[in-house]
Amino acid sequence: MRLSVIQFAPKLGDTAANIKRIRELISSEQSDFYVLPELANSGYNFKDKAEALEYAESTESSTFINALIDLAKENDAYIVSGFCEQEGDNLFNSSVLVGPEGFLGVYRKLHLFLNEKSIFEPGNLDIPVINTRFGKVAMLICFDWMFPEAWRKAALNGAQLIAHPSNLVLHYCQKVVPSYALTNRCFVATANRIGSERELTFTGQSLIASPDGEVIIKAGVDNDQVISADIDLSLAHDKFITVRNDAFADRRQDVYGNLNIDG
Amino acid sequence: MRLSVIQFAPKLGDTAANIKRIRELISSEQSDFYVLPELANSGYNFKDKAEALEYAESTESSTFINALIDLAKENDAYIVSGFCEQEGDNLFNSSVLVGPEGFLGVYRKLHLFLNEKSIFEPGNLDIPVINTRFGKVAMLICFDWMFPEAWRKAALNGAQLIAHPSNLVLHYCQKVVPSYALTNRCFVATANRIGSERELTFTGQSLIASPDGEVIIKAGVDNDQVISADIDLSLAHDKFITVRNDAFADRRQDVYGNLNIDG
Repeated sequence: MRLSVIQFAPKLGDTAANIKRIRELISSEQSDFYVLPELANSGYNFKDKAEALEYAESTESSTFINALIDLAKENDAYIVSGFCEQEGDNLFNSSVLVGPEGFLGVYRKLHLFLNEKSIFEPGNLDIPVINTRFGKVAMLICFDWMFPEAWRKAALNGAQLIAHPSNLVLHYCQKVVPSYALTNRCFVATANRIGSERELTFTGQSLIASPDGEVIIKAGVDNDQVISADIDLSLAHDKFITVRNDAFADRRQDVYGNLNIDG
Repeated sequence: MRLSVIQFAPKLGDTAANIKRIRELISSEQSDFYVLPELANSGYNFKDKAEALEYAESTESSTFINALIDLAKENDAYIVSGFCEQEGDNLFNSSVLVGPEGFLGVYRKLHLFLNEKSIFEPGNLDIPVINTRFGKVAMLICFDWMFPEAWRKAALNGAQLIAHPSNLVLHYCQKVVPSYALTNRCFVATANRIGSERELTFTGQSLIASPDGEVIIKAGVDNDQVISADIDLSLAHDKFITVRNDAFADRRQDVYGNLNIDG
C-alpha cells in the first residue's frame, strides 16, 4: 500500500477553507491511505471552550467527516484526520478514520496537552483498533506521544499502523515515535501541522517510521508537504527481533501487568 | 554528583583480569557513581550453561562483588555492575549495586536475549529501586531496552537514575533509551561493552541521557572509555513537561492499568 502523510496549516475557524486545502493536497498525490493533522477541520489554538464550540461538530452530522468520506470514495482510499468533536455539551479532541466503505471509527485523545484541559474532555473511547482492507489501524493524537503505554496497548491489540494526527509545538515527539515503531514492531505515521496560531508555532517534521524504528521519510519544518512511502503492513505481524525474541511474547506480564489488553 | 560510565571489553572467563581492568578504569576518573557493563566479571558469550557455571558466583560469596565493595569504599563511590550470578543450580544475568556502605542490592535481568535463554533463568526479583546518598537508583540490563514497561515501572517506583549495564550487539538500543529518559523524566546511564567474543561483536556507544531526553555524553564504538557528567538527580523529581502536564499524573490508568507499581 501507499501511505501518505499530509502536513499543512489548517486555518483557525475556517472549516470550508480547510476542506478545500485538504482536497487539493489529496488530489496532488495518489495514495491508498492519507493521514492528516490534529484538529484539521478547525485549527487548534482556541481562546476558550466557547470559541471551540463554534467549530465543533457531532460525528453523526459533521460536514467535515462527510467531506472526508466523499474524498475517500473518490480516491478509493482511507483517510485519518483530527477533528473538533461535539457530543452534547462536551468537546473532544478526536480523530476519525473513513474509507471507501464510509465511516469506520473515532478515537478521542486520551492525554490532553496544556490549555486543551480547559476546552476538551479526556477521551473516553479507549484505543480502538479498526480493520481496513490493508490491515489494522489505531489512532493516537499528538501529546499521546508522551505515554508509551498507549502505543503498546494499540499494538498489543493488533494495530499494524498507528496513525498520529498532531499539532506539535515541542520538538521531542519526532525523536520518540520511531522508538515506539521499533519496540512495538509496527508502522507509525505522525502528521504534524505547520504555521503559527496566536502565540503558538508548530514544528512540522511529519514522519513515517517502520517496524525497524527507521524514519522512512520526514517532512520539512515549515512547508506544506505530502510525504509518501510504499509499505507492507504485513511486516507488522512479525514481532520477532531475533529468532528467539518476540517483542510481545517476551513481555513479563507477571512484573508489569498486561496493560488491560482486549480479549 | 559526578556520574561515570565505563566502557571496556571484559575478558571471557577471566574474573581476575576483569577486576584488575575495572580497578584501573575507576582509578583513572574520580567520580561519585560508576556504571559498568553487563557480565563484567565473566564476559558474555558462553558456549553453554556448563561454561557459564565455571565463572558464576553466589551474591553472598562473590570475589567480584567483594572487589567492587572494596573499590566503592576506597573511592567513596557507588558502583553498578553486571555479573554472572549463581543460586543453587540456577544462573541469573544479574546486576549489583554497591556503595561505601557495602552491598545494596541485586537485579536479575527480566528479558533474556537469544541464547541467554539456554543459560540463564529469567529474573525473579522484580525491579528494585534502591536508595543511595544521591537519590534512588534502579537497574535494568541490556535487552530490557525493548520493553518500555520495565523503564516506566522503575521510574514510577521512584528511580531517578536507571543504570543499564549492557552487552549490546544490535544498534537499536542507543537510539531508544534517551526516549525512556524523556518519557519518564529520569536519568539513564547505559554502559555497553566493546570488542568481540566468538561470533559476536559489541556496539559500544555507551551514553548518559537526561530527563529532557538529551544525550549528555556518548562514548565511541570500539574504544575503552570512561564518560562522565555532572548531574543533579533531583531534576528527576520534576515530572512536569508543561505547567499543566505531569508525565505520571496524566497517565490514563483507567485505560492501560498501573503497571502493578509498588505500594
